[in-house]
Amino acid sequence: MFERLSVRTSERDCLVDITAQVQRLVTQCGMREGICTVFVPHTTAGLTINENADPTVGSDILRSLAKIVPWHDQYDHAEGNSAAHIKASLVGSSHTILVIGGQLRLGTWQGLYLAEFDGPRTRQVWVKVIAG
Amino acid sequence: MFERLSVRTSERDCLVDITAQVQRLVTQCGMREGICTVFVPHTTAGLTINENADPTVGSDILRSLAKIVPWHDQYDHAEGNSAAHIKASLVGSSHTILVIGGQLRLGTWQGLYLAEFDGPRTRQVWVKVIAG
Amino acid sequence: MFERLSVRTSERDCLVDITAQVQRLVTQCGMREGICTVFVPHTTAGLTINENADPTVGSDILRSLAKIVPWHDQYDHAEGNSAAHIKASLVGSSHTILVIGGQLRLGTWQGLYLAEFDGPRTRQVWVKVIAG
Repeated sequence: MFERLSVRTSERDCLVDITAQVQRLVTQCGMREGICTVFVPHTTAGLTINENADPTVGSDILRSLAKIVPWHDQYDHAEGNSAAHIKASLVGSSHTILVIGGQLRLGTWQGLYLAEFDGPRTRQVWVKVIAG
Repeated sequence: MFERLSVRTSERDCLVDITAQVQRLVTQCGMREGICTVFVPHTTAGLTINENADPTVGSDILRSLAKIVPWHDQYDHAEGNSAAHIKASLVGSSHTILVIGGQLRLGTWQGLYLAEFDGPRTRQVWVKVIAG
Repeated sequence: MFERLSVRTSERDCLVDITAQVQRLVTQCGMREGICTVFVPHTTAGLTINENADPTVGSDILRSLAKIVPWHDQYDHAEGNSAAHIKASLVGSSHTILVIGGQLRLGTWQGLYLAEFDGPRTRQVWVKVIAG
């Protein structure tokens, strides 16, 4: 099973909750027990797992990342989006989540987010479930 | 095989070595070859692999993270623990480790740590081994 | 299948593209569909996935990490390489990549890099493919 999602992002920096879409793919494939690897094939976006309740957590994460890695700095990369590349390396491109009883097993307050750092764009997310 | 650990943390920020506990679960399940996915179902704690010999490495990591993401800043999240959420996204919630000959295969100086950023609390760690 | 690569790094901080070497191991093992877990058994080096086209992206990442985690600071660890340990925890020690049709499935602009933070050294990279 290998599936792809297409995710539209609306701002330069934003977190898009993709938990329900990934769960739908897991449900469709019918796999009950295993692990689900989620992978973002981009170099200026990543994946992160964080709070799904209060949206200010997401905005605090993005604002803090913007302080840690300022958009304008002495970067050499001519496209001008080095900060987005660096943030992608900080949060990472892949996550592996347990699948138990056909469900992505996340904590109560956890959601899986596409972390957009150079949007708005249409991004892909790749998903594969391994039984076990 | 899906197992859970309960880990008590003793400070707001601390690293707790969980290598031996995760190894025990791997040994119990009898799986000899494969991968072990370790997952923290929390949004203010994470997982990191780093040095298991000199404890000052861990305290340097925590102090450096506290400089990168100050506890007090202009955060919107009303619970006051945004820094912990951000640190969790920086180190990540999951790790996948090789299992060879029934052993978690880590480097000589590596240990697997629960990274607590908003303790003290009792945390869960989820573990699944996939044969292969 | 469990394989090891040996990677020589040439500077204190550098990114070494290991995509082709990891692909060779995946091809050798003959596994067509699954996931590939890549793991660095060191505590002052890590793994990151980022742009494979313009090398200034890599140098911007390294220079930005050096600003975020200065080499000289009030560290306690006597070996003097705390910054390298901290960077390793920020980028992470493992990555899991999809294998589709016998190929490591990366985005067009993505490469897999060993991130050296305390070189030059000879580093190991461990690779395991799980079918599924």
